[in-house]
Amino acid sequence: MTATHNSYAPGHDASQTKHHEWRTAENSAVHLLPHLARLAPHTPHLKLLDVGAGSGTITASLAKYLPPGGRITATDISDDILLRARNHAATQSLGTDKITFLKASVYHLPFQDGEFDVVHAHQVLSHLGAPVDAIREMFRVCRPGGGGVVSLRETDMAMWCFWPETPALQEGFRGLMARTLTANGGQDRAGRRLVSWALAAGVPRGQIEAGFGTWCYSEPGDQRAWGEAMIERLKTGQMRSKGIEMGITTEQEIEDMIKAWREWVETEDATLGIMNGEVIIKKGS
Amino acid sequence: MTATHNSYAPGHDASQTKHHEWRTAENSAVHLLPHLARLAPHTPHLKLLDVGAGSGTITASLAKYLPPGGRITATDISDDILLRARNHAATQSLGTDKITFLKASVYHLPFQDGEFDVVHAHQVLSHLGAPVDAIREMFRVCRPGGGGVVSLRETDMAMWCFWPETPALQEGFRGLMARTLTANGGQDRAGRRLVSWALAAGVPRGQIEAGFGTWCYSEPGDQRAWGEAMIERLKTGQMRSKGIEMGITTEQEIEDMIKAWREWVETEDATLGIMNGEVIIKKGS
Repeated sequence: MTATHNSYAPGHDASQTKHHEWRTAENSAVHLLPHLARLAPHTPHLKLLDVGAGSGTITASLAKYLPPGGRITATDISDDILLRARNHAATQSLGTDKITFLKASVYHLPFQDGEFDVVHAHQVLSHLGAPVDAIREMFRVCRPGGGGVVSLRETDMAMWCFWPETPALQEGFRGLMARTLTANGGQDRAGRRLVSWALAAGVPRGQIEAGFGTWCYSEPGDQRAWGEAMIERLKTGQMRSKGIEMGITTEQEIEDMIKAWREWVETEDATLGIMNGEVIIKKGS
Repeated sequence: MTATHNSYAPGHDASQTKHHEWRTAENSAVHLLPHLARLAPHTPHLKLLDVGAGSGTITASLAKYLPPGGRITATDISDDILLRARNHAATQSLGTDKITFLKASVYHLPFQDGEFDVVHAHQVLSHLGAPVDAIREMFRVCRPGGGGVVSLRETDMAMWCFWPETPALQEGFRGLMARTLTANGGQDRAGRRLVSWALAAGVPRGQIEAGFGTWCYSEPGDQRAWGEAMIERLKTGQMRSKGIEMGITTEQEIEDMIKAWREWVETEDATLGIMNGEVIIKKGS
């Protein structure tokens, strides 16, 4: 398979980055934290690579789990989003040299073999045409012999459950998100495939730890923030303009979804559960 | 609504209880453990009620999170299953009076108001026609003023993801499980409805903490054990005999599912993810 490079499918517009800023190490990289706790005491200069760092909120919040001499390199393929991530980091009192930002493709990471103790990617493989090649490249730059790991987390668009089960959300919005990913050459059900992809990248089964983690939007503040971000995204994001252009949605469908989100936000018992695949790949010796 | 009493829908036959014995506090009640840790130091005689305790493996493993003077009461509606739970507890070196077993309906718990610090139910509401009444009854016997909680965890049959996505499993088996629950008067998507049901039971939103937890069957030992338990259940369980009798499946469909599970068990990259709704209801003052 030839590795073609896809940009982050739904587009990194302001409406999308806004809700991504809700993400932290604590709510989006829990599976990695025990490995950082294990490595930090005997890896004073721990090097972490955050691939496809996006708006950089997980990147910045991972910094506090590193030893004082630890450093993060954060990559993305978009200059705009790197600027945003750099600006976010600047507000976090991390010290100017804690995180280095770098434009790079996940398929051609500009690093030597084994350069990083930890290689992390969150919601990145879903946007790629060749996720196996990306895992092979991340595995390449992970350091052998020191307990290093590659950490992956991806959603699965079949595993979003809404209450109430409004069709415009449960089938409509979820379906459009899935079609947007695949129409852009990405993967709509990455969550369940991580073990399969890691094996295809040549990693022995014994070096793969698999699990699933969740997001829950139900607490009134979370629910409203998420719903309003989705409305903003449907109103102004590329999912609308590109989706209509590509013929995977219509103006009317978008309007129906906006209306459904507005009602959902006002519903006291509204709940949204999202399941994500989580895999830790041990580099081994 | 009149509360009709449903027996545990798919039937408590040996093929089902076998795979249920895999369940422990650590893999099936993680959301409750911080609350036990919080209560135990200042509740020397902590009383925990495990409603619908089933084969009792979670019950017995919860015992070690209680203070030395803490006690568990475990209820179920089936004499057979209570005997099994009692036998399991006897193998766990817990002391003879640590767990008391009692036949009781969740709709009519034979306890006074506020008798228990913690009331726990795992995969119970899915089998009930009136889950809201059950929550109200569990809430009634939970002690006010001491930080007591009701702890619920239920699966959602729409939230099972298989890899490979074999139709006989992803649609066939999952669908039959869902139909079996609803044909017996239960609920097939309880996971996403827990907040809604707790509100309907009269609990204020501020006393409800909601989240989702998962099970992952992918590690080769887990995967094989689960797959073989499902094959045994399809071959000998009530899901087959009752399912055919009720017209919700056919002999051929069952045979196709058994074949699909056999192939799944032999597939190196096979993964099954299951999402469960988890709710902690605080009793308040």
